[in-house]
Amino acid sequence: MPHITLEYSANLEQRADMKALCMHVRDAALATGLFETGAIRVRAFRCDHYAIADDHPDDAFVHIDIRIGRGRTEEDKKMLGQAVFDRAAEELAPLFETPHLALSLYLQEVPPESSWKKNGIHRRFRKN
Amino acid sequence: MPHITLEYSANLEQRADMKALCMHVRDAALATGLFETGAIRVRAFRCDHYAIADDHPDDAFVHIDIRIGRGRTEEDKKMLGQAVFDRAAEELAPLFETPHLALSLYLQEVPPESSWKKNGIHRRFRKN
Amino acid sequence: MPHITLEYSANLEQRADMKALCMHVRDAALATGLFETGAIRVRAFRCDHYAIADDHPDDAFVHIDIRIGRGRTEEDKKMLGQAVFDRAAEELAPLFETPHLALSLYLQEVPPESSWKKNGIHRRFRKN
Repeated sequence: MPHITLEYSANLEQRADMKALCMHVRDAALATGLFETGAIRVRAFRCDHYAIADDHPDDAFVHIDIRIGRGRTEEDKKMLGQAVFDRAAEELAPLFETPHLALSLYLQEVPPESSWKKNGIHRRFRKN
Repeated sequence: MPHITLEYSANLEQRADMKALCMHVRDAALATGLFETGAIRVRAFRCDHYAIADDHPDDAFVHIDIRIGRGRTEEDKKMLGQAVFDRAAEELAPLFETPHLALSLYLQEVPPESSWKKNGIHRRFRKN
Repeated sequence: MPHITLEYSANLEQRADMKALCMHVRDAALATGLFETGAIRVRAFRCDHYAIADDHPDDAFVHIDIRIGRGRTEEDKKMLGQAVFDRAAEELAPLFETPHLALSLYLQEVPPESSWKKNGIHRRFRKN
């Protein structure tokens, strides 16, 4: 953890740099100090079919889901959600100058008893 | 909100009009009167790899996730889920004539304290 | 049910057989005896954009979400999650020899009152 999943409409592929957005979102999450580098996985899924509002061809969306393990305070969760959201909004600022972008974010906790993991990437970052 | 996400097997790309399905689902959700036009985002994600039942090549699925904010009654939520499900089933009716389609829908509430949003599309619809 | 959704980074497309992984995951779920053949839908979504850890080009992830209906014991759920996770880890074993793969799994229950379904595939498997 954390898992951060972006969904976006295909019409953003040429108007925004989704790879860069993934990296900015990762940087914002790491900057909170809540997570190890090796634990973070940000990914973006493009949908080719969609119907947004009245189907104006310029209408677009980015939705962000954050899933974290239990154990953070309410304050930490607020900080994390806000930090990721603000960074995404900043990166997408040019698109907010038009009335055609909807950005949203949900943060969710995953109970440890419903979670399994094996992470080989930690080997590159953990010293002990 | 609401967020409506469809997942579908790639073998439906030629057998169903997924863009039209997104629009029908949007229309059904808006017709409930529970949502503003500018708030709705329906999107469909195709999976290229899948294993359904015994892997018959004609087997296909459509799954719909609806996520809404808090504040609707249980009755409203039932009505919404049923309306969207019925419309999707109607649109996919020809495929139900074969024993090869599974359709499903889940509806989920998102707590406001775990949710962030910025929606430029509302500007085109809200008068005040 | 069950719904089993895999997400994976696009750099695995050439390094792992994702179709085969879907089938192995399905087999592992069916082998628990908890589900009917006609009920199972495993699907895998590729993300083309992502940022994993420090963005090493070899870093990759597979994440598995399992969603099931209510009614299984805690023991059954543990068994199911473990069986699917172990099978996926086994299939991806060559990738775990490098410090570049993160595998994870979440299991979630869906309340029946928030769930709608119509499954034509059962006709091929149910005798009565």
